[in-house]
Parts: sequence; C-alpha cells; structure tokens
Amino acid sequence: MDIKMIEGGVCAPHGFMASGVSCGIKESNSLDLCVLASEKACAAAGTFTPNAFKAAPVVLTLEHLEKSGRLQAVVANSGNANACTGERGLADAAAMARLTAGHLGIEASLVGVASTGIIGEYLPMKKMEKGIAAAVKALSPQAGTLAARAIMTTDTHPKEAAFDFGGFCIGGMAKGSGMIKPNMATLLGFITTDARIELPDLSKALKASVEASFNLINIDGCTSTNDSVIILANGASEVEVDPTDFGAALFQVCSSLARILVEDAEGATHLVRVNIAGANDAAEAKKLATAVAESPLVKTAFFGGDPNWGRIVQALGAVEPGLDPSGVSIKIGGLAVCLCGEPISFDVESLEQAMAAKEIAVEIELSRGEAGIEVLTCDLSYDYVKINAEYHT
Amino acid sequence: MDIKMIEGGVCAPHGFMASGVSCGIKESNSLDLCVLASEKACAAAGTFTPNAFKAAPVVLTLEHLEKSGRLQAVVANSGNANACTGERGLADAAAMARLTAGHLGIEASLVGVASTGIIGEYLPMKKMEKGIAAAVKALSPQAGTLAARAIMTTDTHPKEAAFDFGGFCIGGMAKGSGMIKPNMATLLGFITTDARIELPDLSKALKASVEASFNLINIDGCTSTNDSVIILANGASEVEVDPTDFGAALFQVCSSLARILVEDAEGATHLVRVNIAGANDAAEAKKLATAVAESPLVKTAFFGGDPNWGRIVQALGAVEPGLDPSGVSIKIGGLAVCLCGEPISFDVESLEQAMAAKEIAVEIELSRGEAGIEVLTCDLSYDYVKINAEYHT
Repeated sequence: MDIKMIEGGVCAPHGFMASGVSCGIKESNSLDLCVLASEKACAAAGTFTPNAFKAAPVVLTLEHLEKSGRLQAVVANSGNANACTGERGLADAAAMARLTAGHLGIEASLVGVASTGIIGEYLPMKKMEKGIAAAVKALSPQAGTLAARAIMTTDTHPKEAAFDFGGFCIGGMAKGSGMIKPNMATLLGFITTDARIELPDLSKALKASVEASFNLINIDGCTSTNDSVIILANGASEVEVDPTDFGAALFQVCSSLARILVEDAEGATHLVRVNIAGANDAAEAKKLATAVAESPLVKTAFFGGDPNWGRIVQALGAVEPGLDPSGVSIKIGGLAVCLCGEPISFDVESLEQAMAAKEIAVEIELSRGEAGIEVLTCDLSYDYVKINAEYHT
Repeated sequence: MDIKMIEGGVCAPHGFMASGVSCGIKESNSLDLCVLASEKACAAAGTFTPNAFKAAPVVLTLEHLEKSGRLQAVVANSGNANACTGERGLADAAAMARLTAGHLGIEASLVGVASTGIIGEYLPMKKMEKGIAAAVKALSPQAGTLAARAIMTTDTHPKEAAFDFGGFCIGGMAKGSGMIKPNMATLLGFITTDARIELPDLSKALKASVEASFNLINIDGCTSTNDSVIILANGASEVEVDPTDFGAALFQVCSSLARILVEDAEGATHLVRVNIAGANDAAEAKKLATAVAESPLVKTAFFGGDPNWGRIVQALGAVEPGLDPSGVSIKIGGLAVCLCGEPISFDVESLEQAMAAKEIAVEIELSRGEAGIEVLTCDLSYDYVKINAEYHT
C-alpha cells in the first residue's frame, strides 16, 4: 500500500462533514458540541466501555448499532458525561439523536451519540436543542478540527489523524486525557472511511485495531463510563478494499491517535513505553506491563528522572507472585539497570540523559516464554494532581 | 477484659529490650538499625509479603520461623531493603542474624531479620557489623521509641502502640509510609507480648488480626518486597491467656498501628474510610473498596475537597462490570450524594465542611448482599508526588 499522511481528520475521507459549536454546557463558552455526518448511510461498528455504569449515550448507541449496523451521523458533547443519570439520562440521549436526525432528515436510529465530562449531572437539554440545530447548520467538509476541538475536556489540543491509503482514506479524531485505561474501547474516538467494506469485516477490523492500540495505552488506570470508539464507512471512494489491508490501515490510524492521547496525558512530562518480553502469553504480558504502567511509585520516579528500578520489580512481583526474580532483567532508555534480578552498575550520566528525554523506553525481559507486549503510559506529575484536584463538580 | 493504653511500645511487655542506633546506612546519620530482644526464647510467628521479589531478610526469617516457631531477637535496618540482591543479599541477611546472635550469646536461628529502604542495592556490611555490636550493647527496656525511630523511612514520626489487657501486655511498632498495599502482611511491624500462648494459637491470632487490620489499609496500591509482621510471645507475665481473648487483644494493637500508618501516609492530608455495604461476600467488598481506595482520580478529588462521586462509581463499575447501577447509593461525610445510581441534591456547604475534615467517611451501599468491609486510605497530594519523585536512588 502507498500510504500518505493527510490533513482533515474525520473529514478527510470523501463524503463526510463535521462541525463544532459552543452550546453553553461549558462555562467558558468553548466548543462543546459536535456533529459528524456522512452524505449517505454507513456501515458502522463500535467498541464500548465494559464499566457497569455505562453512560446513557453508550447504552443508546449500542442499541442503534445492534439494530442495523448502520449509522449516518454522530452527535457528541463534552463537559457532561450523561452518566449515572438513570431514565432521564436515557431520554436525554435519545433526544440528542432525535434532534440531530430531525435536522438532517434521517431516521433517529441512524445517529450515534457520545458524551464526555462530569459524571452524575443531567444534560441542559434547552441548550442542547439550540446547539444541535446550530451544529447541523454548520456542517462542512472543512470542519474536522473544530469537531475534534468540541470533544476536548482536559486535552490541551485537538487530536486527529488521517491517512490516504491509495484509493481510500481513513480519518479519525479522539479525546483524552484522564480516566484513561481503555478496556474493549476507549475515551471518545470517531473514525471515518470512504472505503467500501462489509459490516462483519469492519467490526472485526475495529475490534482488532482497538485491542492493539487504544487498549494498550494507560494514563491513570481508570476505565471511564463513556469510552466509545465508533467507525463509519460510507463507501464513497467506491474502492472495494481487502479486509486484511483495511485492518492494517485502520490499525495505523488507531495507533496514531492512541499515541497522541498519551503524549497529551494529564500533566505528563514523559511518554513511557513499557515493553514486556519473555512472558508466557499475551495476557500475562499485558497484566505485568499494566502493573508497571499504573504504579504511582514508578510514575513518580519517571517524573523525578530517577532510574529507581526497584519500584518496577516491586510492581511486577506484586501482581505475579510466581515470577522468578533471577529471570528478570530491565533496561531503561536502552541501558541495563537490573540483570537476572540483581543490580548491575551503569553509567549514571548516560542514564540521566536517557531519563531526561521526552520518550523513555522501559524494556523488561522475563525469560519465561515467548510472548511480549508494549503499553504506552506517562509519568505522574504535580500537574496531574493539580488538574484532578481542581476539576470541581 | 480491663484494657489500658500504656507507654513503651515493644518494650511494654515484661522481659523485652530494644535499641536504635545509627550505623551509617542513611547519609543523614539518623537512626537506621534496631535490635529487639527478649530475656528468653519466644513463641514466634510472622506474616510476610507475597511479592515474587521477596527480600533476602524475608526469605531468611521465613526459614527461621518454619524451623522451630521460636525467635528470641529481631534485627532490622532502614535505608536499604536488601531486596533484589541475590545470593549476596541472602548471605548478608544471614550475617546480620549471626552477628546479632553472637553478641547476644544465642543461636543464629533464633534471630529474625528485617530491612526496609531502597531496593536493589547491597548492604554496607562493614557498617552493619559495627552497628549491630553497638545496638546489642545499647539494649534497654526503655528504648522502644528509639527502635521505632530506627525503622522509619519516609515516616514523619515513630509508630508505636501498647495496651495492658489486665495480666498481660501487647506492644508493637511499625513503619510506613509508601509502597503500602499490604497483602498477607505489611510494611514492617514488630509485636511483643508477655502472654503465655501456644504457637498455633499465636500464629492463628496473628493471621486473623493482620487480615482485619494491616491488610485493610492501602496507601498507594503498591505491595512491597519487604512486608513483614513478626510477633514474639515470651510468656514472662506467666499469664496463660485464652486464645480468643488474645486474638481480640492482638487485633486492638494491630488496628491501632494500622490506623497510625494511614494517618502518616506519604503526603496525605486526609484519612479516607471507604466503607462498602451490601456486597455479595467479603472478597467482593474488599475488591470494590480497594478499587475506590486506589483510584488516583478519587484520591485527587479528596485532596481537592471535591465530592466528585462520579469518580467513585467509575472505580466501582470498572472492576465489577456486573454491578447494577440502580442499587448503588453513596454518602460522603454522612451526606447522601448519589441515590440508586443517580444524583440527588445536597447541601453544598455542609458537604464542603465534611470534606474539609481530617477524616472523611465514604459509605457505599451496593444492595446486592449482606457483606461489608472498611478499607482505610488517604488522598493523593502534591507532597506524595514530591516525596516519591525526589526519593532518589
């Protein structure tokens, strides 16, 4: 495949339009509502949070997708998650779909809904009503970035990716940047493509790509109530794509977005790649990488620029009491710090340099099997505490 | 039982002596080595970390206890955990026992060893040798607090508890105050008693008391490589105690120490009691309370004084996807904030007051069964980040 990175985000593929408006959920008057729409109905698939407290829009969108596997539009807001809002929340999510559909002149069941923000507050439906009308009116093939901006919460910039795969395009947008331990799905992510692809292939490709991208990032170990990744394929390119090729293409878009999310993690000063090798199987590798990625002691050590590998082995050994310490070796920034479970001397200056880099690799060899995995995470800084202590209800 | 809180810590029971000296492991010349000794050999039991990377002193002390169930002394140092130090670490731990035993004129197998501090560095044995000689020489029935001070790392004060149960005494000391998610055991805790009690009863009482005290505190979700709680019963009171009475007495000492540990948690500004009711069983209750206690989003909200209960339900729902949201109700500081999974209005001023208190209760009703539990935790502050980013290897 001839692959080219392009501009435009979710509007890069043919036949998609988007918009981002301010409807007044956020006090700051910043953008907080977006609509994404296709010229014609799309094959559509999604992956969603397994959290017991699934938000109302997650429940509704699951219903819509299960009904027909088709969507033509998505409406999403930031500033309010519409989670833990009971029957009233479900009615509000349904109203968002109905209002959007009405202005577009389509069936309400063809509209997906997503929300992100504070949990446990009802949506201000008067404001939503006006906002949805304005957003549909503002739809444009040039407004991908405005839409990406309208779904931001603590994100410091809009997050987009788009690639031309020679014949068809895939574009996407996503938002982070706290409560991020995706599981089955993640945060909000919206992906569009003009490839012509059958629904079962689309679903399968989305599931595999999300598993290997969004589900391998972990900012703070907290799986949200609103995690949703939705893909719309409108076939506008008229290119019938091989499912395997499409899967590889989609993975590229998902992993680009996932990486951008970790780079903009709340308060983060480093991106840390936790690489596990020599595990018995992928599940074990993921469990161990996750334990390291979630450890507040490991994360604060990286913030402090300290190669305190004792905290890494502590995290490994706590979740896998059967681990053989003598099989464990660790490199930080390419430099060995622990060999077969014991300290080895290293050049302090080189290591300090490696830990000052924006991106730091932690390579952990377990010597028990052939499986490996890489989880992307970040450090834990004063600013993470600041952002989350000051984000008031 | 007539119960009286008394002074003296581990030296409160008859026939025990202790000491705390500076042997030079810590650069600051603060106390870093303690010896605890009984006039005669004691029935002894311990509970230890399940971490795969068990420190050398944990491995050694387990051996000594399994051999005979008897100890007469314990030697412990702070500033170096002697963990991830391989064969050399095991030899160093054995040397600590041998040196202590030599000066006391007893068998090396009657000495328990414990270490706490940085992981992955070898002990400075020349310094240890001198220090152990000085510590044995300094043994005194008045030096309980010096010993408690010598095992401190990031603790801001020594941690002791002692009670007279009418006829016999139990005293204890412990240290925290990060890497604290005890599991089967915790941190370092040393408990002495002059009660006359059989070894099986002693072991059983220790296990039960630790499970219901130390194992229900959680500062940062990190189970250490060195967790050890050791109890010595020398029978010097000549009071034969009923095992059930002894169990209740021991629980009182353990829960006092556990609570003191959380109150002095790294950087903490609040003690948060996470109380789960209406769970199917105790294991489920503990899993859910732990999820709330470990959530960085919940912990930063408490630091910020924010009743952001959405983060509490997120934590519950993420680890128990089968939870029925409509059964979940939450009170913070005695005030209802969430009823049957939905928001209810509350008096903002009263809630702000409740969250400003040093101690905050979070009561979570699940409405699925009869089991409950309470886990003690703390908030996540700038100072936790500061302490752990600046604690350099």
